[in-house]
Amino acid sequence: MLGRTYDAEVCSAARALEVVGERWSLLIVRKALFAGARRFGDFRSLGIATNVLAKRLDGFVDAGIMERTGPDGAEYALTEQGRELATVVVALTAWGDRHLAPDGPPVLYMHAGCGGSVAQRLVCDTCGEVNDPAELRAVPGPGMPAEIAARMSAS
Amino acid sequence: MLGRTYDAEVCSAARALEVVGERWSLLIVRKALFAGARRFGDFRSLGIATNVLAKRLDGFVDAGIMERTGPDGAEYALTEQGRELATVVVALTAWGDRHLAPDGPPVLYMHAGCGGSVAQRLVCDTCGEVNDPAELRAVPGPGMPAEIAARMSAS
Repeated sequence: MLGRTYDAEVCSAARALEVVGERWSLLIVRKALFAGARRFGDFRSLGIATNVLAKRLDGFVDAGIMERTGPDGAEYALTEQGRELATVVVALTAWGDRHLAPDGPPVLYMHAGCGGSVAQRLVCDTCGEVNDPAELRAVPGPGMPAEIAARMSAS
Repeated sequence: MLGRTYDAEVCSAARALEVVGERWSLLIVRKALFAGARRFGDFRSLGIATNVLAKRLDGFVDAGIMERTGPDGAEYALTEQGRELATVVVALTAWGDRHLAPDGPPVLYMHAGCGGSVAQRLVCDTCGEVNDPAELRAVPGPGMPAEIAARMSAS
């Protein structure tokens, strides 16, 4: 193990989880993405406590994934950065569908333009789709500090 | 908004977050997936408190995403179900890379077989890649109870 440690500070997944890693966060984002929720009350049906909901929404505005909008400034709209979290929600949904949905997927994702079914895929730019996650390897990228990259490469 | 509520109980993303929705959970999974962590001590470098780490690992075993293994039963290995969380980790990483990595991606995912770069894509089975998350729609699937599906369709 020594030398293969990715410190949380230089990991984009960890950084993403700093923004959306609380349990309610991705469900709030999901409700905005796919159920048209915009006003505080729209999100209440998640069953989340109002003080937690207020904290999450304000945090999302601070983090740049939502912005306050509407005539009275009382609506929360996802920014483009926030909408891009759709990929994370789709990935979580797909995993849940596969392992935790004995009656079949409760929700399907469709492509608005053509009505096709949308799924998440891992794609290799050299040989096509990657079906087995065991075939993935993490290697240092340009944003990895040199001393950590050296340890990763040596291990 | 009324009638477009997805109750948490019939949402695979919510079910997935019940298993891996605590902040440390996906970082523990990530460390097992991509940094070869197996023993309790291997995960300690995340900086997680030992009592929390023990709770998460035992919870993963209970949930079926890890199993105890090794000669002394002291190793935690991801099951196939656990390894499939790679798609979620890759999606989170990609989002973080795009928005929270000013120096570039700290970590890149490669395809072990051919050395190609691996990325996550949303793919429409009718027309190909979906580049704009605004083009996604959530519709009731076979696992959605009829009365909720009717409300979703009517809205």
